[in-house]
Amino acid sequence: MPSLASKAVQMPASPIRKLVPYAEAAKKAGKTVYHLNIGQPDIETPAAALEAIHQLDHKVLEYSHSAGFESYRQKLARSYQNQGIPVLTEDILITTGGSEALIFGLMTACNPGDEVIIPEPFYANYNGFAVMAGLHVVPVTAHIEDGFALPPIAQIEVKITPKTKAIIICNPGNPTGYLYTQQELEQLQLIVQKHDLFLFADEVYREFCYDGAKPFSTMNLSGIEQNVVMIDSVSKRYSMCGARIGALISKNKEFMAAALKFGQARLSPPTVDQIAAEAALDTPQNYFDEVVAEYVARRNIMVDGLNSIPGVFCPKPSGAFYCVAKFPVQNAEHFCQWLLEEFSYEGQTVMMAPANGFYASPDAGMQEARIAYVLDQAHLRSAVECLRVALEQYPGKTNS
Amino acid sequence: MPSLASKAVQMPASPIRKLVPYAEAAKKAGKTVYHLNIGQPDIETPAAALEAIHQLDHKVLEYSHSAGFESYRQKLARSYQNQGIPVLTEDILITTGGSEALIFGLMTACNPGDEVIIPEPFYANYNGFAVMAGLHVVPVTAHIEDGFALPPIAQIEVKITPKTKAIIICNPGNPTGYLYTQQELEQLQLIVQKHDLFLFADEVYREFCYDGAKPFSTMNLSGIEQNVVMIDSVSKRYSMCGARIGALISKNKEFMAAALKFGQARLSPPTVDQIAAEAALDTPQNYFDEVVAEYVARRNIMVDGLNSIPGVFCPKPSGAFYCVAKFPVQNAEHFCQWLLEEFSYEGQTVMMAPANGFYASPDAGMQEARIAYVLDQAHLRSAVECLRVALEQYPGKTNS
Repeated sequence: MPSLASKAVQMPASPIRKLVPYAEAAKKAGKTVYHLNIGQPDIETPAAALEAIHQLDHKVLEYSHSAGFESYRQKLARSYQNQGIPVLTEDILITTGGSEALIFGLMTACNPGDEVIIPEPFYANYNGFAVMAGLHVVPVTAHIEDGFALPPIAQIEVKITPKTKAIIICNPGNPTGYLYTQQELEQLQLIVQKHDLFLFADEVYREFCYDGAKPFSTMNLSGIEQNVVMIDSVSKRYSMCGARIGALISKNKEFMAAALKFGQARLSPPTVDQIAAEAALDTPQNYFDEVVAEYVARRNIMVDGLNSIPGVFCPKPSGAFYCVAKFPVQNAEHFCQWLLEEFSYEGQTVMMAPANGFYASPDAGMQEARIAYVLDQAHLRSAVECLRVALEQYPGKTNS
Repeated sequence: MPSLASKAVQMPASPIRKLVPYAEAAKKAGKTVYHLNIGQPDIETPAAALEAIHQLDHKVLEYSHSAGFESYRQKLARSYQNQGIPVLTEDILITTGGSEALIFGLMTACNPGDEVIIPEPFYANYNGFAVMAGLHVVPVTAHIEDGFALPPIAQIEVKITPKTKAIIICNPGNPTGYLYTQQELEQLQLIVQKHDLFLFADEVYREFCYDGAKPFSTMNLSGIEQNVVMIDSVSKRYSMCGARIGALISKNKEFMAAALKFGQARLSPPTVDQIAAEAALDTPQNYFDEVVAEYVARRNIMVDGLNSIPGVFCPKPSGAFYCVAKFPVQNAEHFCQWLLEEFSYEGQTVMMAPANGFYASPDAGMQEARIAYVLDQAHLRSAVECLRVALEQYPGKTNS
């Protein structure tokens, strides 16, 4: 039997993979498991998108252009412009999810062996994309005590070496929900400019900003237009995770021309899904207003609830639909497993994602877990109560 | 402006990219251009697949499992079994097109710097996938005079070095249409076994076999079950190129477990398209009978027509919907450009793909072009007549 590639061995497993069998066993044992571990929203996909799928009038399900349908790119560009984000049709390559946009983007920008700096905790699949492109992830730790704000810029700059090719941020952030301020992004701009790096900005949660906070796009940082690469996706915006439609966006024409060659090799993004994504652009503002109001209510239930449990600390994020909480336990992964394996309260328990998997630094975030508040409010209340009771019973509880 | 990665520079352009502006100019000038250059069939997608799209009853377009829907994998496995191909549900990873299956497969099997042997001419995008995985393509030339049969096995074996990790075949072949015999595949089996290589078999044209020829799947080669990786796709089978649903298939459990980690990093293949692909499995046999009869008629018009033109030679393939013809010209790319730029016959001309782009050996296939017979019979007859008249007028004609 031929041996596998070292990349195949290096590819990381999902932070929750070890817990999945315990969750399945819990369900088999009749427990209700509140899934706070995944970013699959329960929000309905906009009617316009579903209608476009139902009304598909193609007789032949053909390839689209490798960069995506021109009509979709045009309409998408206009939608950015309406939000004050200066994107032209030719700045856009439609991809199969934000994932493919990052893979193509990293392969276009970075040679194997290059380093990419990422504030941690970060979306765990960035590790997988880095392995695919042969890159080394250099983390800079953001701290829960600071609400996961951007680490001091000097701490980032000190990590830059001749091998550093890019900085990757997610804004608003998965897993933290932290929304970078314009000032934080302008600090990043200074070192990006000074060291001539690429700045990859995963902005797929842009529509999910709360308490009047306004997202500031990296595409609006003037002076580093040739360095900024924006990653986008319809997955969260329109609750269309299964459509697998994303976008790679940059003003750097040489970069976009090279990225298109990766796009041509895989022929095209899916056709029906692009048609649905194009139709989704007609979604009225009140859809988002309602969704945002719902997430604010959910966040408040979850975060306020967590902070009301003795020993738990959870900063209140301004964006996305995640939060990271610190628990009074030595090992959050063990706590998460115990919740599934040993615990139940009125037949219910909770599944969370241990946060250690979102850090590249070993042993970081050992007391933390990521919570996605993607369930309805009643279930979130029950989940908080489960956690409250669990922490009264958990044998591995610490005093801090 | 930061420099791009060397991979971005190495990524090959499509073999027809240079011709596209000439085709556009020809159309602008009012010429009818017969597109024999692309593998986008005009055959209608099966009604069952389109109906499944129209009837989609999801309220939320969610992710599927990273390996694809279980129900789809089960039904797909049964469909292979019904064809005598021993595939189990757990041998299948559903991918975003056959393209993603090859990318994941190569990254799972091969380290950067490894070599993959491919009989040429071959599907040009294999070059792009090899660049993405950092691999060196080592071609072994198949010759038009032999109808593009597998080169003598000794010529393949002599290319094997300690860096060789895999052999890639496409059967039936794009661009040649050649269908490997069981005997040819058994010869490959011997060297795969002897040198413990992976054998990647792109079998996406399996349903397109003519004149009573039966495809023999590499999954039926006994003794190398741990080495064989089959690539499949619904694109051509059901004329669903735009669905982007493929599959990576192997009995090698370690390989499949590692490939799934690449699948998990990109989350899932598209949901609606999988539902359509699953429904397409109910397509009745008479759909394929009609499609095959149509392609046989088209192939005969095209290949017999080409061979009736003085100086043109085109072996008659038993599979897929391509053929490669040798023209009495010094440079087929120039001839293809001239057809678009300078020539017309009754307001019509032809676009073909110069075959040089399907060879990795420099200067190979300079007199050849690939023709996809994906147009209706009347248009194919007109296209042949265009080529006949063109070769009477073309100034770069040779005597051979």
